[in-house]
Amino acid sequence: MSTETITVFGAGLAGTLMAVYLARAGHRVDLYERRSDPRVAGAAGGKSINLALSARGIDALARVGLAERVLKDAIPMRGRMIHGPTGELVYQPYSADPSRAINSVSRGGLNMTLLDAAESESDVTIHFGRRCIGMDFERRVALVTERTDEDATELPVRTVIGADGAFSGVRSSMQRRERFDYSQDYLPHGYKELTIPAGDGGSWRIEKNALHIWPRGTHMMIALPNADGSFTCTLFWPYEGRNSVEELQTERDVERFFRAQFPDAMDLIPSLTHDFVSNPTGSLVTVRCSPWSVGDAAVLIGDACHAVVPFFGQGMNAAFQDCTVLDECMRAHPNNRAAAFGEYHDRRKRDCDVLADLAIENYVEMRDHTASRVFRARKRVERVLTKVFPRWYLPLYEMVSFSTIPYGEAVDRARRQERVVVIAGLVIFMVALIGFAALLGWLL
Amino acid sequence: MSTETITVFGAGLAGTLMAVYLARAGHRVDLYERRSDPRVAGAAGGKSINLALSARGIDALARVGLAERVLKDAIPMRGRMIHGPTGELVYQPYSADPSRAINSVSRGGLNMTLLDAAESESDVTIHFGRRCIGMDFERRVALVTERTDEDATELPVRTVIGADGAFSGVRSSMQRRERFDYSQDYLPHGYKELTIPAGDGGSWRIEKNALHIWPRGTHMMIALPNADGSFTCTLFWPYEGRNSVEELQTERDVERFFRAQFPDAMDLIPSLTHDFVSNPTGSLVTVRCSPWSVGDAAVLIGDACHAVVPFFGQGMNAAFQDCTVLDECMRAHPNNRAAAFGEYHDRRKRDCDVLADLAIENYVEMRDHTASRVFRARKRVERVLTKVFPRWYLPLYEMVSFSTIPYGEAVDRARRQERVVVIAGLVIFMVALIGFAALLGWLL
Repeated sequence: MSTETITVFGAGLAGTLMAVYLARAGHRVDLYERRSDPRVAGAAGGKSINLALSARGIDALARVGLAERVLKDAIPMRGRMIHGPTGELVYQPYSADPSRAINSVSRGGLNMTLLDAAESESDVTIHFGRRCIGMDFERRVALVTERTDEDATELPVRTVIGADGAFSGVRSSMQRRERFDYSQDYLPHGYKELTIPAGDGGSWRIEKNALHIWPRGTHMMIALPNADGSFTCTLFWPYEGRNSVEELQTERDVERFFRAQFPDAMDLIPSLTHDFVSNPTGSLVTVRCSPWSVGDAAVLIGDACHAVVPFFGQGMNAAFQDCTVLDECMRAHPNNRAAAFGEYHDRRKRDCDVLADLAIENYVEMRDHTASRVFRARKRVERVLTKVFPRWYLPLYEMVSFSTIPYGEAVDRARRQERVVVIAGLVIFMVALIGFAALLGWLL
Repeated sequence: MSTETITVFGAGLAGTLMAVYLARAGHRVDLYERRSDPRVAGAAGGKSINLALSARGIDALARVGLAERVLKDAIPMRGRMIHGPTGELVYQPYSADPSRAINSVSRGGLNMTLLDAAESESDVTIHFGRRCIGMDFERRVALVTERTDEDATELPVRTVIGADGAFSGVRSSMQRRERFDYSQDYLPHGYKELTIPAGDGGSWRIEKNALHIWPRGTHMMIALPNADGSFTCTLFWPYEGRNSVEELQTERDVERFFRAQFPDAMDLIPSLTHDFVSNPTGSLVTVRCSPWSVGDAAVLIGDACHAVVPFFGQGMNAAFQDCTVLDECMRAHPNNRAAAFGEYHDRRKRDCDVLADLAIENYVEMRDHTASRVFRARKRVERVLTKVFPRWYLPLYEMVSFSTIPYGEAVDRARRQERVVVIAGLVIFMVALIGFAALLGWLL
């Protein structure tokens, strides 16, 4: 087994977990992070500050003994709580099995836990305040800056893992190579974060063990519980058009719109109008690319190769699953990293493309369909089928969130199930019709 | 009307024609080109050296009085000549109207004609050997280099038109902005160029007025006539797998493969095996992006915003059509360039996306279907329909190549036509069946 140093760029969620995996496999790891140490400086804002950890992520953490420590601080969410336009509530469990839940975790807290875990490995060294802006794969040097892009210095590297996010510096150099497929696609919606403060004595002012959704067609708000009793709300808002970020400029506009569409939220978020106007708007991008590696010089994981929109709560979980698959491939090819990276890409690429599509589809489902009767009826039918045919029927949402079945396989299986259900429905309907006709004949 | 200087980057086909349009509209133009003057240095190789000029391109040239000059040196191609695996020939006219043709023109010759035309406008200044590697849209400066990227200097600009090709420097700076959609997708095939030399006395050794195709499933060769009696052949070859560029490494491998698959070409191209091994392999990329402009600071045309694969022969024609549409939009909004650029994008974006898809579909059609009996029968039915219903029926190929109907509209109309033909076919079949049944009843 090679003990050459592996350089990981990005000490976010994927990079730190990968560093732990690498150290456990006997590699020395140099981990670089553009920000300063959040354990010293406090967590950075900007990105959504809580996340839904589910089966894939838990599995990846469990393999290096970190799941328990992370889940200790997590809040299980067992279903969706839908807030209607007049404040009425409808609860939809995520599963027929009430013990199944996705888990609200703090991004900052989880990152610090993972930094601690990486640092406690004797073979991992973390360097803060240094950012990779590009790489020369032939010469095996990375361009690393301390603050501005002008002071970039060359860092000799052997093998690089690019865990440096949707705007990856490692990937930017791959893009300049021949025959690198790449796409970045933005949704016409942006997001803003707001906070529902805790109630008296750190209590939760709305249902604690649920993911809250205010679906309003073109506009949507969600809220995830925090351990301190507060909720982090995320608004998904169109950039342009009626009641868009562009249009709702003043606090008065915002107040009028919220009063009409989100009356119960108005009462929960005292600083709503002020925060809406002053908080920044984040954009929602889907990144796809191929291949994910250059020989044995570099490979990408997480958002760097497959950033997805947040509507299936799978971005972090998919990034963690990358770590387990890359680890498996590197162990399977101890003396051929290029082959390991190629196999990792081939095992993950289609699944991550499928996830990207699922995440965009779920965006429509969440903001439009969760409010509809048809959607609710469908979810009820799914729960009945799961109870009656537990070995055969598993709803897509559950395969994605409560299993580690590859995303592509999950979608294929969901399609097969749907076909059988439709055909069975037709057969039942026709048998009933014939029975009814026979009964009618007997009666007359 | 503004007479501020407009900076055009790229004096290829789109950039030079755009410069002529701008000068005619009363603008001063600074035109920058990274290569040296081809009229002095000789045309650069690398890119395909002849192209198919069709209705859209001719229309764009005619509007500034250049069509006649360009068509003088062009060779009309009135149909496809299909070369079978044993050397047998099948000719398929492009249209029921034998006067309709696409025109083989030399890229180098056309570029020089357009450079002359641009230079003859008193308000156009051309600067060779200077390349744009990026732009600061807020500060209105372009980064321009003379040879290497290190010596970049800042060039103050007012409005930039990026006509700098599939790897556009202007676009590279747009990509770094928020919410810029971008994709680059490579085909698994590359291309190589070869030459069929002229016959005795500058004669053409195969049919002059046709586009020649050797369709072989995964492999394809095409040849376009040149004015000097030679033909430029382009091979489209898979990068990997059986008989790929990767596999056919030696002259012996190449000879064996060609002898088996392209026997007639072997005899026409004396230096085939040597040229195959020594000529570079070009890649085939599709580029899409949105938006195409940044305020009134910059706008993209041609390959810079919509590079397509060459299989519909429309890349240059689409780029020329950009020039006419952008010219119309700028004339319609003489005092609001941002609005002009926005309208240009909105008018062209869907059409160019449709073209990108058509070009990839035509790749499959050319290499697989042109050889099939079904394809030939279908083309015959299309020609009959065009003759019988000349005002209603127009095959998609003809709408794309022999009209200026926007690509999107052409595809929509082709779909409508196809639906009607299928329904009419079913009706005729059923009427015939009923007639036959009635006849049978009368007979018995």
